[in-house]
Amino acid sequence: MKTNDPIYLDYNATTPLLPEVVDAMLPYLREHFGNPSSGHVYGRRARDAVARAREQVAALLMVDPGELLFTSGGTEANNLAIRGIADGRAGPGRIVTTVIEHPATERPCAWLEAHGWTVIRLGVDETGRVRMDDAGAAIVPNTALVTVMHANNETGVLQPISELADLSHRAGALLHTDAAQSIGKVPVRPRELGVDLLSLAGHKLYAPKGVGALYVKQNTALVPFLRGAGHERGLRPGTENVAAIVGLGVACQAAARDLESLAARLQDLCDLLWRRLAAAVPGLALNGHPTQRLPNTLNVRLPRASGTAILAAAPELAASTGSACHAGHETASAVILAMGVAPADAVGSLRLTLGRGTTRDDVIRAADLLAATWRHVAA
Amino acid sequence: MKTNDPIYLDYNATTPLLPEVVDAMLPYLREHFGNPSSGHVYGRRARDAVARAREQVAALLMVDPGELLFTSGGTEANNLAIRGIADGRAGPGRIVTTVIEHPATERPCAWLEAHGWTVIRLGVDETGRVRMDDAGAAIVPNTALVTVMHANNETGVLQPISELADLSHRAGALLHTDAAQSIGKVPVRPRELGVDLLSLAGHKLYAPKGVGALYVKQNTALVPFLRGAGHERGLRPGTENVAAIVGLGVACQAAARDLESLAARLQDLCDLLWRRLAAAVPGLALNGHPTQRLPNTLNVRLPRASGTAILAAAPELAASTGSACHAGHETASAVILAMGVAPADAVGSLRLTLGRGTTRDDVIRAADLLAATWRHVAA
Repeated sequence: MKTNDPIYLDYNATTPLLPEVVDAMLPYLREHFGNPSSGHVYGRRARDAVARAREQVAALLMVDPGELLFTSGGTEANNLAIRGIADGRAGPGRIVTTVIEHPATERPCAWLEAHGWTVIRLGVDETGRVRMDDAGAAIVPNTALVTVMHANNETGVLQPISELADLSHRAGALLHTDAAQSIGKVPVRPRELGVDLLSLAGHKLYAPKGVGALYVKQNTALVPFLRGAGHERGLRPGTENVAAIVGLGVACQAAARDLESLAARLQDLCDLLWRRLAAAVPGLALNGHPTQRLPNTLNVRLPRASGTAILAAAPELAASTGSACHAGHETASAVILAMGVAPADAVGSLRLTLGRGTTRDDVIRAADLLAATWRHVAA
Repeated sequence: MKTNDPIYLDYNATTPLLPEVVDAMLPYLREHFGNPSSGHVYGRRARDAVARAREQVAALLMVDPGELLFTSGGTEANNLAIRGIADGRAGPGRIVTTVIEHPATERPCAWLEAHGWTVIRLGVDETGRVRMDDAGAAIVPNTALVTVMHANNETGVLQPISELADLSHRAGALLHTDAAQSIGKVPVRPRELGVDLLSLAGHKLYAPKGVGALYVKQNTALVPFLRGAGHERGLRPGTENVAAIVGLGVACQAAARDLESLAARLQDLCDLLWRRLAAAVPGLALNGHPTQRLPNTLNVRLPRASGTAILAAAPELAASTGSACHAGHETASAVILAMGVAPADAVGSLRLTLGRGTTRDDVIRAADLLAATWRHVAA
């Protein structure tokens, strides 16, 4: 970021790379360029680097390195999880998901639906959480897969994944969770959560874009989605993106090291942002659960205003009205509408997401700027 | 590469990044970290960089930028091409390919075959080229897709893609070619070749691993393979790998600039390598066509010896017996066997592939080393 750049409160869209991540990647963009599949020393150096990174990711998740597959990002990890389970079945089955999933989960489910699968989409309550009663009714025996995101990208609301995993397993279903937004912000441990598959995306975690991973619990039958050579135990073909994988490893190491202190600091800043904004904007409302939420994510509704108009009038701040993929759309976010917010109110929503680089001064300036802009544009 | 590192003659496995490529990527790994989908200035900078890179790739291929989709690499580009055409059909159809394709083409075809498609695999003649008579007989009306690699990764042999495209179009079929190995080594112009789809991989072209592209001729109906948000005109979801895409753009720019001089220099070095090795190894044979071949690729058979044993006894040289994906296997290469070479002879094959960093001294030392090692290990 340059000195005159806007205050960046859009860490859920993407994160800057940690300097230590870039430093670790550079040798693999320069001298250690080998193909990990090559038998010679150039290949071995690259292979060793991928193995080391796999151990670093595994350490953060507290899983075995052999349970991780590297992918090109979160979207591919979700596609591999969902299609990798579905394509292993003899024919169409049943899948349970939610109405608030990221398109990288919703669209593979919709594809299956168009090919004969039954897809049940659970609604959420006014705090943005799945109702366990609904889940219990939907996850019937012979459900193949339940896929529910760990934390929502727009509201930061955490879903009851452990309980859903229990329900799923009792019905003989596997549980997949997209942890792209929660990883590095709260503890994400597949074994504690009880999940069978878990996706993560590097660029939400101070690692580069173009890399992600899928945790696949030992002995889970997964078929490859991409087809090709035998990389990643035959489950994900394509020459390994060595430098980016090295970056993901170091980012996971940093996440494990800093998780507790970072979460506490961002929670404080998020609370400050909320208090300062609420004091200046009468009628300000929170989108999402008051506590079951990522410590860095504040999604608010400003009354009698459009979030898009506010952001357009405040270019000194970089934030969003919903997901980055939703940027530029004037319509209300489907995630906010699913929580029962009226469309006229939902359009006043702003997603403010904090990260490692966020300072107390950023938060105060952002709150004051938003309040002033709101006074200017509110009807 | 370090001073004491082996001579690298494995450029078909992967290439080092050009320094100008790394330099161009660095700002996008450091300050310009935005998500191209974000509406704010961070997003715009990333979006602009992707647009510029698309123009650079398009300039090398002499196509419209709007005809290019960025992928995670060659494997994904091939999967997207083959499945993207096949999945758009109402039901199983016919596909024509060859017995010498890379697994990234063969395996998607095999998947289709397992799902009801008819897959015809053309053999090759003793020079490694498809016979046009065979192709003419196989490409019948109602063939959906013909997919034939432009240059073989092991032998460098160029296939008659223009003629195959003509045949395909007369039968109403689309033609896809995997140009991962030819791009940057010989002119690759989809319009001159007459192809409908063309894949390329960054890391074979002095760009990073983890990025590739698919050319899709205007008005070609392609359905997405990965499912998710609306990136790449809805055809390839997932946050764009900005830094790697920038690297691919600069690598394509460099390829366009240097193509002629580089090809001439590598052809000379390749010829020198062949002459020097042939003079020292009686009975040395060439695998592949004498002239319809990449200028950087020399695949030779040494008599009464195993290629694997020779490489194991000559760690001062980094080369391979076949594709990198084949590394460590003692069995003969299927590509060489397909050319009618007896298995006992085929195991003596070595793939020596040259690149930008290769010097005359490298070639002389490699030839002498191989000849001396051969004398030592030959039966």
